Amino acid sequence: MKKRGFKVSEFEMRMARAQEIMHRRNLDAILVTTPQNIRYFTGFDSQFWESPTRPWFVVVPGEGKPIAVVPEIGAREMERTWVEDVRSWPSPIPEDDGISLLSDVVNSLATKFNTIGAELGREMTLRMPVNDFLKLRTFINRQILDGSPALWEMRMVKTESEIQRIEHICKLASESYQDLPKYLNIGETERDAVRKLRIDLIKRGADSIPFLPAVSGQGGVSQIVCGPSDRKLENGDILFMDTGSTYDGYFCDFDRNFAIGKISDEAMKVHDLLWTATESGIAASVPGMTTEDVWFAMNRVIEEGGVKGNNAGRLGHGVGLQLTEPPSHRPGDKTKLVPNMVITIEPGLEYLPGKMLVHEENIVVTEDGPKLLTIRAPREMPIIT
Amino acid sequence: MKKRGFKVSEFEMRMARAQEIMHRRNLDAILVTTPQNIRYFTGFDSQFWESPTRPWFVVVPGEGKPIAVVPEIGAREMERTWVEDVRSWPSPIPEDDGISLLSDVVNSLATKFNTIGAELGREMTLRMPVNDFLKLRTFINRQILDGSPALWEMRMVKTESEIQRIEHICKLASESYQDLPKYLNIGETERDAVRKLRIDLIKRGADSIPFLPAVSGQGGVSQIVCGPSDRKLENGDILFMDTGSTYDGYFCDFDRNFAIGKISDEAMKVHDLLWTATESGIAASVPGMTTEDVWFAMNRVIEEGGVKGNNAGRLGHGVGLQLTEPPSHRPGDKTKLVPNMVITIEPGLEYLPGKMLVHEENIVVTEDGPKLLTIRAPREMPIIT
Repeated sequence: MKKRGFKVSEFEMRMARAQEIMHRRNLDAILVTTPQNIRYFTGFDSQFWESPTRPWFVVVPGEGKPIAVVPEIGAREMERTWVEDVRSWPSPIPEDDGISLLSDVVNSLATKFNTIGAELGREMTLRMPVNDFLKLRTFINRQILDGSPALWEMRMVKTESEIQRIEHICKLASESYQDLPKYLNIGETERDAVRKLRIDLIKRGADSIPFLPAVSGQGGVSQIVCGPSDRKLENGDILFMDTGSTYDGYFCDFDRNFAIGKISDEAMKVHDLLWTATESGIAASVPGMTTEDVWFAMNRVIEEGGVKGNNAGRLGHGVGLQLTEPPSHRPGDKTKLVPNMVITIEPGLEYLPGKMLVHEENIVVTEDGPKLLTIRAPREMPIIT
Repeated sequence: MKKRGFKVSEFEMRMARAQEIMHRRNLDAILVTTPQNIRYFTGFDSQFWESPTRPWFVVVPGEGKPIAVVPEIGAREMERTWVEDVRSWPSPIPEDDGISLLSDVVNSLATKFNTIGAELGREMTLRMPVNDFLKLRTFINRQILDGSPALWEMRMVKTESEIQRIEHICKLASESYQDLPKYLNIGETERDAVRKLRIDLIKRGADSIPFLPAVSGQGGVSQIVCGPSDRKLENGDILFMDTGSTYDGYFCDFDRNFAIGKISDEAMKVHDLLWTATESGIAASVPGMTTEDVWFAMNRVIEEGGVKGNNAGRLGHGVGLQLTEPPSHRPGDKTKLVPNMVITIEPGLEYLPGKMLVHEENIVVTEDGPKLLTIRAPREMPIIT
């Protein structure tokens, strides 16, 4: 997988599907402002998003190609994408940072439903000042509705090209994890582990590594949201590492656990229980099942093991242009699995206060059943000495 | 600079200043939702922000300590900060993701002005679904105003501890740039340059590298927002690299230009002009001057050189917990410079169509005049052979 970027036919395919979904949901167009959604429709790739100063807009109309409304500094590069209609203004101008220009574009769109969708709902944020959004609402001649259900319907089911990229970064990170015991030793710190894994991931060809925590603790970890720290790895620890690395814009999101020296029998038993729960979650990920079913498949194994769950609120989720995307494997989320959904299978539990273990794999749902994108974690925890 | 994290006294100092500013601006409290603002008030550091699934909230009251309202998965770690009052709910629950819990907290705050500020304005976005924010507006018993002018007034002027961290990452990245010609060669690609510089930055101790583009072109570059590509470096090229790397949460933001083999006399002349414009911008950065004055100081040199400007809309900006922060050096931005502001000095120009050069240094404004945080770029462009 050497080539980055997509053919125009890929974007045409996405647009055709998007327009079918928008039409069905009574939206004349969708306005997007975030890196992921703009990249999804245009292919525009930039690290410049890191600067919050200038807003960027892309209008995805019910017919025809996307229209970009972007700061002058980015117009030339946006013109190199498949988008033909690129408008720009000399941002930053806090008094009117593209709002009147954007309103003109929206107001000139063909109207059927008198609506436009925007990134207003679940697991989405607007990348523009809210005050400018409220101003925009009064400048345009149609109702702004929540476009996120439509956007997630589009993005939840991946194209073959998207799956190739996720599979590529999953394989690359799997191999990186596999080699970690070769160059990490007892007595080094969590921070050393992150530094070494990060360098290895870059050497193997990861484009970016926005997410790479490490946490360690005797027989398990007390949390999985912070880290690394300067804590030294000691005999009996479990080192938990997790990564969202990217290739050509697409994320993997999976963790691995490492035994530091000799861990307790109890920790080994819990590890095996989670390995089995993962198998059960993978097996349940077939078309027609729901994300709730996948949760039950994992939770049943965990409960039969006689332990309680964790505080993550779910046991897996979608992955793609973002580290985590809908759906969530949790009771009450009845999203039906369909082919080409890429999801994580992520059972976790806290078997004693402050001793948590979490497993994770990435799979794609296919007509022929679940297909692993990661290289399956070994049933026995790899040992770091 | 080995130690990460801040003492409680640092947060107490920030709070005292914040509360003075809030009081002066008639705000009972400020609600913050973004990684940078939450970290500013609590010290909470996590890569978990990369997942957009769960919203996090911190209420900064007019009196007393911050109150955190966070997903259960993060409560334990938030409790390890100096924040005492941590409330949580089992997120994700799309139907009510913390909104009623947050409303209860806000509604129980002492009232003087009957207002609360939020991240609604310039160079800020809300990290929560806009629909939930609109719901919140109807749940709480006071008016939500734009808190961003207050937040930027706080964050624009850094503490000594913040400046130390920015200086540390500036020095580290300066040395990394200086060594690049030792291990990058003609014939390698922009992507190779990024990979090598990234590994070097990690080895030197950068915590993260959210921004590291590379662009190359004969005698200059056509844009500075995208890249790296697989373009091979050729004799006569200028390689432009820019980085926003971080240490303990704080960014540097500065670029460097490298001559690939022998570049044209014209490119060398323009490079020298920008070097002089940078000197002029640095010299103008003294307390009492405005950001507009800094712009004029640089622009005068550029215009005297007989060339036009660039399309960035400004010639520098603030830097701190984010890659770019207010103010902007541009005509019309009359922000008065005061001691402890950290800013970039960033003159750029396009001397021929598609041939752009941009210089950049980071400085802190002090009573005794401007102080460089970066190691000043050499007047003669370093050569890669």
